[in-house]
Amino acid sequence: MDRLSLQDPVFATYAIAASLMILKAVAMSWLTVVRMMQEKGGYRSPEDLRKTPLNPQPDPRQLEPNERVERIRRIQMNDLENLPFFLVAGFLYVLTGPSLLLAQVLLYGYVGSRLLHFAAYFTAQTHDVRATLWTLGSLILIFMTIRTLLAALGV
Amino acid sequence: MDRLSLQDPVFATYAIAASLMILKAVAMSWLTVVRMMQEKGGYRSPEDLRKTPLNPQPDPRQLEPNERVERIRRIQMNDLENLPFFLVAGFLYVLTGPSLLLAQVLLYGYVGSRLLHFAAYFTAQTHDVRATLWTLGSLILIFMTIRTLLAALGV
Amino acid sequence: MDRLSLQDPVFATYAIAASLMILKAVAMSWLTVVRMMQEKGGYRSPEDLRKTPLNPQPDPRQLEPNERVERIRRIQMNDLENLPFFLVAGFLYVLTGPSLLLAQVLLYGYVGSRLLHFAAYFTAQTHDVRATLWTLGSLILIFMTIRTLLAALGV
Repeated sequence: MDRLSLQDPVFATYAIAASLMILKAVAMSWLTVVRMMQEKGGYRSPEDLRKTPLNPQPDPRQLEPNERVERIRRIQMNDLENLPFFLVAGFLYVLTGPSLLLAQVLLYGYVGSRLLHFAAYFTAQTHDVRATLWTLGSLILIFMTIRTLLAALGV
Repeated sequence: MDRLSLQDPVFATYAIAASLMILKAVAMSWLTVVRMMQEKGGYRSPEDLRKTPLNPQPDPRQLEPNERVERIRRIQMNDLENLPFFLVAGFLYVLTGPSLLLAQVLLYGYVGSRLLHFAAYFTAQTHDVRATLWTLGSLILIFMTIRTLLAALGV
Repeated sequence: MDRLSLQDPVFATYAIAASLMILKAVAMSWLTVVRMMQEKGGYRSPEDLRKTPLNPQPDPRQLEPNERVERIRRIQMNDLENLPFFLVAGFLYVLTGPSLLLAQVLLYGYVGSRLLHFAAYFTAQTHDVRATLWTLGSLILIFMTIRTLLAALGV
């Protein structure tokens, strides 16, 4: 069977993990929008102070950083530092022909670590909790990438 | 025919959309460079105040935020929050075997929404215009990703 | 032979270059962690001031920008503006069927330009050095993407 087919169980595992991570990343943009609407602030562009249907009562303070909005932006920034690399690393790792079980442990383990990282960051858990969850995902990413590198080098 | 071939019309549609979006993203970096040269400012690193052929008359104010440069940085940040996920989501979506017409509507629709978003942001249109164009692209991205997820789950 | 196989020399070249760039990107996150631990500062979230095993003596100044940490964040930001697009552009370029030699020159040339860019930024070389190395990588990225676009358009 074609290795890059959604019918292939290992590739389907990757596609499911990748889709969940893409939806997670997109959700951060929408969550930023929701928070900006709740706070009526945390905007960034001068033109956002114009009077429009979405902003009927502009106020210069709307351009000041708003911690409830900034928290989501920090979470999103952490996604941008991690998810694009996971999406490519996971794809290449699947081409090394891992067992289905190992692929599931690594790919779904990564997804789980990122969802828990989000929960910890969103609810302002202690730095050490957040760091532990980030480290778990990062180690999975490094493992998959080194495995791919060795396979491509023919080692 | 091989599904991942540039001769396959659906995959070629993806490759064209992806290439245009990559060039768009790269163009933001160059536009930032152009604006920094025009403004002789908006720099970020302490070493950028050294006297060099590209900066013959350094001035500490060159490290202050410059709105004409910051606008491009905000546009670029918006790209980073969206385009890497589109590039992977579009690739996986093509593997679900969509019709050529639907693939063209979604992939070129996304490209169009991002180019118009750029035009609106660049010319400082009202927030509502920008938000509408961003929403269009984001909904296309979500649709393609959910379609991929369902296909990979065998639903 | 399957074109998307790690046994294919051109695709293996891409996989090696991509893996190195992913590891480089991930290393920036770890380097940020190392610097924050060395400086005991450069943190960003209010909850990072809580007393924990990793931060036994919290101090409000820990949330102020720290130049040694900010430098790594700027390098990482530059990666985010470039590497995700290289990872996809390189993949699509390989599908255009380039010669092994050309693929090696472009893909490894990109990797080399980014590693040198890191070295220049990390050691605070003059802006002109950094800009030259960035430009080299950016031109390789643009070349590969335009080549892909033309191939997908059937030109």
